[in-house]
Amino acid sequence: MAEQENTYQFLKPVDQAAFRDHMETKVAQWIRPWDGQEELLAGVIGVPLSKTSISHSGASTTPAAVRTAFKSFTTYSMEYGVDLQDLAVRDLGDIAMHATDLMGNHRRIEDSLRALFQAHPALIPVLIGGDHSITCPAVKAFADRHPGKKVGIIHFDAHHDVRNFTDGGVTNGTPFRGILESGVVDGRNIVQIGIRGFMNSKPYHDYVTSHGVTVFSSRDVYRQGIEKIIDQALEIAGQGTDVLYVSFDVDVIDQAYAPGCPAIGTGGMHPWDALDALYRLGTLPQVQGLDFVCIDPTVDIRNVTSRLAVQFMLTFFAGVAERAKI
Amino acid sequence: MAEQENTYQFLKPVDQAAFRDHMETKVAQWIRPWDGQEELLAGVIGVPLSKTSISHSGASTTPAAVRTAFKSFTTYSMEYGVDLQDLAVRDLGDIAMHATDLMGNHRRIEDSLRALFQAHPALIPVLIGGDHSITCPAVKAFADRHPGKKVGIIHFDAHHDVRNFTDGGVTNGTPFRGILESGVVDGRNIVQIGIRGFMNSKPYHDYVTSHGVTVFSSRDVYRQGIEKIIDQALEIAGQGTDVLYVSFDVDVIDQAYAPGCPAIGTGGMHPWDALDALYRLGTLPQVQGLDFVCIDPTVDIRNVTSRLAVQFMLTFFAGVAERAKI
Amino acid sequence: MAEQENTYQFLKPVDQAAFRDHMETKVAQWIRPWDGQEELLAGVIGVPLSKTSISHSGASTTPAAVRTAFKSFTTYSMEYGVDLQDLAVRDLGDIAMHATDLMGNHRRIEDSLRALFQAHPALIPVLIGGDHSITCPAVKAFADRHPGKKVGIIHFDAHHDVRNFTDGGVTNGTPFRGILESGVVDGRNIVQIGIRGFMNSKPYHDYVTSHGVTVFSSRDVYRQGIEKIIDQALEIAGQGTDVLYVSFDVDVIDQAYAPGCPAIGTGGMHPWDALDALYRLGTLPQVQGLDFVCIDPTVDIRNVTSRLAVQFMLTFFAGVAERAKI
Amino acid sequence: MAEQENTYQFLKPVDQAAFRDHMETKVAQWIRPWDGQEELLAGVIGVPLSKTSISHSGASTTPAAVRTAFKSFTTYSMEYGVDLQDLAVRDLGDIAMHATDLMGNHRRIEDSLRALFQAHPALIPVLIGGDHSITCPAVKAFADRHPGKKVGIIHFDAHHDVRNFTDGGVTNGTPFRGILESGVVDGRNIVQIGIRGFMNSKPYHDYVTSHGVTVFSSRDVYRQGIEKIIDQALEIAGQGTDVLYVSFDVDVIDQAYAPGCPAIGTGGMHPWDALDALYRLGTLPQVQGLDFVCIDPTVDIRNVTSRLAVQFMLTFFAGVAERAKI
Amino acid sequence: MAEQENTYQFLKPVDQAAFRDHMETKVAQWIRPWDGQEELLAGVIGVPLSKTSISHSGASTTPAAVRTAFKSFTTYSMEYGVDLQDLAVRDLGDIAMHATDLMGNHRRIEDSLRALFQAHPALIPVLIGGDHSITCPAVKAFADRHPGKKVGIIHFDAHHDVRNFTDGGVTNGTPFRGILESGVVDGRNIVQIGIRGFMNSKPYHDYVTSHGVTVFSSRDVYRQGIEKIIDQALEIAGQGTDVLYVSFDVDVIDQAYAPGCPAIGTGGMHPWDALDALYRLGTLPQVQGLDFVCIDPTVDIRNVTSRLAVQFMLTFFAGVAERAKI
Amino acid sequence: MAEQENTYQFLKPVDQAAFRDHMETKVAQWIRPWDGQEELLAGVIGVPLSKTSISHSGASTTPAAVRTAFKSFTTYSMEYGVDLQDLAVRDLGDIAMHATDLMGNHRRIEDSLRALFQAHPALIPVLIGGDHSITCPAVKAFADRHPGKKVGIIHFDAHHDVRNFTDGGVTNGTPFRGILESGVVDGRNIVQIGIRGFMNSKPYHDYVTSHGVTVFSSRDVYRQGIEKIIDQALEIAGQGTDVLYVSFDVDVIDQAYAPGCPAIGTGGMHPWDALDALYRLGTLPQVQGLDFVCIDPTVDIRNVTSRLAVQFMLTFFAGVAERAKI
Ligand SMILES: [Ca+2]
Ligand SMILES: [Ca+2]
Ligand SMILES: [Ca+2]
Ligand SMILES: [Ca+2]
Ligand SMILES: [Ca+2]
Ligand SMILES: [Ca+2]
Ligand SMILES: [Ca+2]
Ligand SMILES: [Ca+2]
Ligand SMILES: [Ca+2]
Ligand SMILES: [Ca+2]
Ligand SMILES: [Ca+2]
Ligand SMILES: [Ca+2]
Repeated sequence: MAEQENTYQFLKPVDQAAFRDHMETKVAQWIRPWDGQEELLAGVIGVPLSKTSISHSGASTTPAAVRTAFKSFTTYSMEYGVDLQDLAVRDLGDIAMHATDLMGNHRRIEDSLRALFQAHPALIPVLIGGDHSITCPAVKAFADRHPGKKVGIIHFDAHHDVRNFTDGGVTNGTPFRGILESGVVDGRNIVQIGIRGFMNSKPYHDYVTSHGVTVFSSRDVYRQGIEKIIDQALEIAGQGTDVLYVSFDVDVIDQAYAPGCPAIGTGGMHPWDALDALYRLGTLPQVQGLDFVCIDPTVDIRNVTSRLAVQFMLTFFAGVAERAKI
Repeated sequence: MAEQENTYQFLKPVDQAAFRDHMETKVAQWIRPWDGQEELLAGVIGVPLSKTSISHSGASTTPAAVRTAFKSFTTYSMEYGVDLQDLAVRDLGDIAMHATDLMGNHRRIEDSLRALFQAHPALIPVLIGGDHSITCPAVKAFADRHPGKKVGIIHFDAHHDVRNFTDGGVTNGTPFRGILESGVVDGRNIVQIGIRGFMNSKPYHDYVTSHGVTVFSSRDVYRQGIEKIIDQALEIAGQGTDVLYVSFDVDVIDQAYAPGCPAIGTGGMHPWDALDALYRLGTLPQVQGLDFVCIDPTVDIRNVTSRLAVQFMLTFFAGVAERAKI
Repeated sequence: MAEQENTYQFLKPVDQAAFRDHMETKVAQWIRPWDGQEELLAGVIGVPLSKTSISHSGASTTPAAVRTAFKSFTTYSMEYGVDLQDLAVRDLGDIAMHATDLMGNHRRIEDSLRALFQAHPALIPVLIGGDHSITCPAVKAFADRHPGKKVGIIHFDAHHDVRNFTDGGVTNGTPFRGILESGVVDGRNIVQIGIRGFMNSKPYHDYVTSHGVTVFSSRDVYRQGIEKIIDQALEIAGQGTDVLYVSFDVDVIDQAYAPGCPAIGTGGMHPWDALDALYRLGTLPQVQGLDFVCIDPTVDIRNVTSRLAVQFMLTFFAGVAERAKI
Repeated sequence: MAEQENTYQFLKPVDQAAFRDHMETKVAQWIRPWDGQEELLAGVIGVPLSKTSISHSGASTTPAAVRTAFKSFTTYSMEYGVDLQDLAVRDLGDIAMHATDLMGNHRRIEDSLRALFQAHPALIPVLIGGDHSITCPAVKAFADRHPGKKVGIIHFDAHHDVRNFTDGGVTNGTPFRGILESGVVDGRNIVQIGIRGFMNSKPYHDYVTSHGVTVFSSRDVYRQGIEKIIDQALEIAGQGTDVLYVSFDVDVIDQAYAPGCPAIGTGGMHPWDALDALYRLGTLPQVQGLDFVCIDPTVDIRNVTSRLAVQFMLTFFAGVAERAKI
Repeated sequence: MAEQENTYQFLKPVDQAAFRDHMETKVAQWIRPWDGQEELLAGVIGVPLSKTSISHSGASTTPAAVRTAFKSFTTYSMEYGVDLQDLAVRDLGDIAMHATDLMGNHRRIEDSLRALFQAHPALIPVLIGGDHSITCPAVKAFADRHPGKKVGIIHFDAHHDVRNFTDGGVTNGTPFRGILESGVVDGRNIVQIGIRGFMNSKPYHDYVTSHGVTVFSSRDVYRQGIEKIIDQALEIAGQGTDVLYVSFDVDVIDQAYAPGCPAIGTGGMHPWDALDALYRLGTLPQVQGLDFVCIDPTVDIRNVTSRLAVQFMLTFFAGVAERAKI
Repeated sequence: MAEQENTYQFLKPVDQAAFRDHMETKVAQWIRPWDGQEELLAGVIGVPLSKTSISHSGASTTPAAVRTAFKSFTTYSMEYGVDLQDLAVRDLGDIAMHATDLMGNHRRIEDSLRALFQAHPALIPVLIGGDHSITCPAVKAFADRHPGKKVGIIHFDAHHDVRNFTDGGVTNGTPFRGILESGVVDGRNIVQIGIRGFMNSKPYHDYVTSHGVTVFSSRDVYRQGIEKIIDQALEIAGQGTDVLYVSFDVDVIDQAYAPGCPAIGTGGMHPWDALDALYRLGTLPQVQGLDFVCIDPTVDIRNVTSRLAVQFMLTFFAGVAERAKI
């Protein structure tokens, strides 16, 4: 619309920010829509699926809420001494969801990621859910990406997410049962961090431990510090594996900091612990995939939970930038 | 992104609606961004200025809220037997506002419209404020559009908007004083409809009547019916004039129907009366400009007031379509 | 603080409005605190009591919410051709309520009004509740004001308000049982307007009719028009009485217009009908007292219900101004 | 818990109301849970399904919200001179919904109703959705209830609800396409009332008229009055049919009165028109089924939309009581 | 309703959860209504009284809000390695409150608890207020439970709660003055934890210290750690006493974590400190009573404060389970 | 109104609190309106300007929101063993702002403070913004107060606030550029504490460091503890200066604790760190001015952010009381 701008000096296109500072780069200017060709370090992919939740959830609106928050942050962190704006990260758009074919939607996620990974084997996907059910098809595509290589998972969550399939089918309560039962990842390479009391049943705790999954509670993080927990988690998840996938259910964070999740509670993780963990995971070359799930912007307050997720993602990218330097 | 869609079947661009019905055209698909060239019947122009309000107002966010509501409506009205989708109406974007130079912003409005009218003399501007202060520069540009022709104004509002300039300068409380004192429109061709009790002072009522302005109260509309009021209004505003400008302050509507305005109250106009009036004004060739002002989406409930404004605008266009037929 | 204003030009006292237009008088400037001496036409009196409600109610915050709304309205109505600013109406403050002695609070209301009426026999009290329980002590004081004169009551409400005293004592559900059983007003001079279906029980409807009370439903108002209803109401309430008291429970208005009441519902009266009724009642010399009750600002939206009550009160005063002229 | 009440005088069971007036019957006391045996005049059935909506909807929470509103209303209407408390109306509970098998849920609705109708052929079902997709299976079961008898439908809605099945499958946008294409009801016996401009596309308007469906717009109701519209609707829907089904999409009501619907707008029907229509439909013996759909309590304000639905249902029952008398 | 379920396969009773996982026990399934006979380890008792608050409070709605939160938590804590579902804890319902006889309500609390303690001497009451005024009658009944035994109190609160009785009578501001002046507990066995700056007056601080009460400020907890504070508190409260009562005013928690209290502020206790303290108190056999007070769900956000109270109670029960083991 | 109180025992003036405890002094009773003469230790001054913000901000309503919170706090802190009620602190009212002359408003701030400082050279101003643009004129007046003395600044903020003047003029994004470029304070005596990642651009970070400004990030505070940071800050800001000014942008606090700021985010400072810092700064005689800015009460929740600011101010005064003792 360059010509118009000349003619009608003050008329600016609809999608341009009301205020622009030419000395500042916003995340919205950096993570632009992908042209489908450019080779990328990482790609943000919206997965607006939440009808697969067992309780009412507006998580399908998260990709849009997260993109809105892109306007509120810059690309620069003095803390890590890094400006992200030259990293090749783009917005790949959303995986289109069918209104009623929910199991078909899981296939769409898996198929889309397989196609993407085939064309761009080095791209780090950053999935913005949607509910946690998206992680099972995502991990299946992820695991098939490099045949012969083994995958470990670091899973931040208040919940084990291994419900039985009988009572409600494949939902946001079942992704890790799906992963474990499909055998795509060995339970001994899965670490769950931030599991909370009175939010899971004993049979499910027994289920994960019987599959060799390692569990750190939110109380463990509070008492031992995130650094020690991540040390152990990397040791366990990395044991004999080649690549790591990080699945981050935002309800792992205390309800005071992340009120916009369907299943909230007190006694959750503090954001600083998550920030430290994600930075460190970002620095590690073996971390090749990441998702943020189970935010419900429709019950959030001032979009704080989506903003927090964006800051978490940016901090992960600060780590990736460090990795890229080496 | 056509190629990408082929490759990654389900990846869709960010700005595409989650659900699309191929047998339905939404207003958002019809009122697309203008290319700066196409000859238009009408153009929607955002004017995101509300720092000129005497009370705290978020009216600067209205253009965005109105565009969001474009997704909720279709182009077809069975009531008027009209499908608007072939009318050449486009979105011209926003007039860029400076953060602190408020009087300069009024000049930007006037200058932008002058430039636009020069290039496209037949285009009907539909301004989405912003607060009511935008109407004075808009009317000045409008009046100069066809030299030698006289302008009449139909002004829907709970307020006279003729405050003195001493107490706060040029604000949303003064547009009609600005218009009257500049002489750009003769008071005898101005009709105010919907003025409410206990929302204006006697000196200002005396001021407008002393300038020959005709005033119909909200009570008059309720008692006499909108049809009679509009009959008289057209008679008066049209007396010796060539073109008409319609300025619609949404606070003229009762607070139950339009809760998202800064100055709300009961005893306001009913939406049906506004719809009937706007349809009729739409049908008249002499009506060549329209604005909607003084919505504050930041205090609205579920965006109902912006939705209402969109329905008002569409009904005006239904009238325009009728006019276009002849 | 005149001197300070000279010295520190721009420092203004805390309670002064942010924006003042010297050509406009706000209700807040007109209904000033009373000096305790000035002879008044009418006095606004807050009665912040709502612990006497059978359901949770924040009606005790209404006097403050109503005073806040005084800043949003002017004293002038073009519709009635009247500027109220010279009427001697002042704000008498609130009747102080004890935190736990609820029956004592009713005595405080009665005693305060008795003392006030003794010193100022011609003053029209405009009580701002609080819940409806305040009307029983208020009417008792009102009835004793002019010994030997009989009182009639026009009662706008969705409810009969004649619950038995056994189940909860003296509450907002019982004022008219209190009035009827104390014999202070004869049921044959009480008219209830706006009673709604499915909001009262048959035994209570039978109770009021057995006491000779006349009842018009909200549906009657909708079908017959307010004018006819008020005609009949005045006939009945005035039959053999000397003075009239008007008790206005704001929940008589439809929930779309008055969402901030504890007991809301659809099918209520339209504001225009209330405005017409109150103007007319204002014009009648026999109307000597008025209350507005059962607004709960803590559940309201943008204070619309308190604003509406203020507009109702102003319209009553417009009628009073008419009466004063004669 | 009778004994406990003796022993611990003031301990009352959890589910008992905080305040009870022994002279008043609330709807919650009347429409009690059904024992599965009692012969009923009518049964309230919750259908908590809204994952079948094309946009995000919390309509699945409506049955609970409606039951909560049962506590706010009594069984008596002075307007219709009727106390409903002796009508055999009970709460049949909810049809259990599967978390992810959405098409299976439609079968559950149809199967449950078939089983119910077989055991209780005279019972009038009052379905509380859920979204409008529930109406198609409900009508299929309803139509098979009395073999050999023909069914007519009176459909209140802002929308035609005949979207194509290709773009999203069977959703809340398609129930009347489902009904028409299954042939279970003849389009010439379907009347749509309250359809609004700019909320439907021309192809869908053409689709319904080509199937013989009669359409009255919201504007028609406003201009002609509900009585005339219902006269015509009964004539058309009753032409050659034996029984009538009423489907009431609450978004037919203006957004000021029913803000808690997913698809809101101005220019909708007024509650009084709906109340009059539903009372009249209640009185007619041929009306044998009713549903209320597309309320979303999660976006409502003070549950006003569910309250309104309850008042609509009660007014329908007031008509039924009249019918029962004959 | 077993038979009905057979007949109408998918119809489920109203009060059954929408989603049930047969491998998970929710707190709502565990803390069922009491039959009035079963011997209990502990009983949850609602005390819906808040008209005794000096400021507007909806604390009377807390018991219902807390029970709603019972559906959101399970009985199992991996952190403490305990599943509570076999503990004999039941819901005793609410103590019925009179609408206006506030002092009578205090007698109801005391009488109900006395009767309960007489029949079930070993039952640990967990009172869910209501405001803090309920603690004085509760402690009186508690103290008389075991004649000859002395009681100590651990009181978590931002406030001393020893206001004079002259200014407002017996309110939520006076429970500890009531306890101290009645002599039912010796001030030297009362420990107040979490008292905050700028929320109490000096005369009241002097009053408690002059009665021998020990006070730890919220700042003390922050600086010294909760463990040390509880060590000292147990030492002091236990000095010469036989049983301990814990009174937990939720406003002791920082407003970021417990926004739904009438008197909120920053600089409050962190939830982890409360969780640690309550677990430890749960493990001690001498702790025989507990209350949670001064939550106002009507001003809360997403019920987070009631959820937090439930997690606090569950953690106390985790301690009790530990105690029960020994 | 003393006489009236005698006559009408229970009538109390409008502005008197509903509940008063004669043994408690609220901040609202202590920080009374100034008479313009009394010599003061400190004065609270409202600066209701936020049209100078680059994004929509309601910070102009903060002075009123802060004063409302004065009613919620007492003058006594047991933590610091201090009762503030005898400190000579008064409310000087607001600096009157013009509706549209924004640069003139900055002159009003500077001129008002100059006049005030001239008449009362020892008064500590506590400015309640408004947005951060007010700090530049305030510091200019402050710096000229004691000719020949040098000023240092401790600036708490998530942002550097040194945007270029080209893109939006003089705004809340530019105060420290204004201060640096005017030379009124040397960059080497400015310390910024709490700067956050992804909220500033690299060019602005480079700008401040190139001017010698010292920057501590929010992460630095979290890792090193506030005590060490303040030690260093005092060292740097005090190097060669005589007086210190403290500018506190409340968005430096984490969004969980201060949700009512325009630019919120996670990873911010904890309130305890701010409380400790402000107490310490209060104790230092060289600290002679303080402002709190960038709260937006219109987007806050239960006024928690203004309450927090009041507690911050009171804690600063607790320090000042300590200073006064010496
Ligand atoms: Ca999860
Ligand atoms: Ca989770
Ligand atoms: Ca206007
Ligand atoms: Ca206006
Ligand atoms: Ca009443
Ligand atoms: Ca009522
Ligand atoms: Ca529909
Ligand atoms: Ca619809
Ligand atoms: Ca307390
Ligand atoms: Ca407390
Ligand atoms: Ca700043
Ligand atoms: Ca800032």
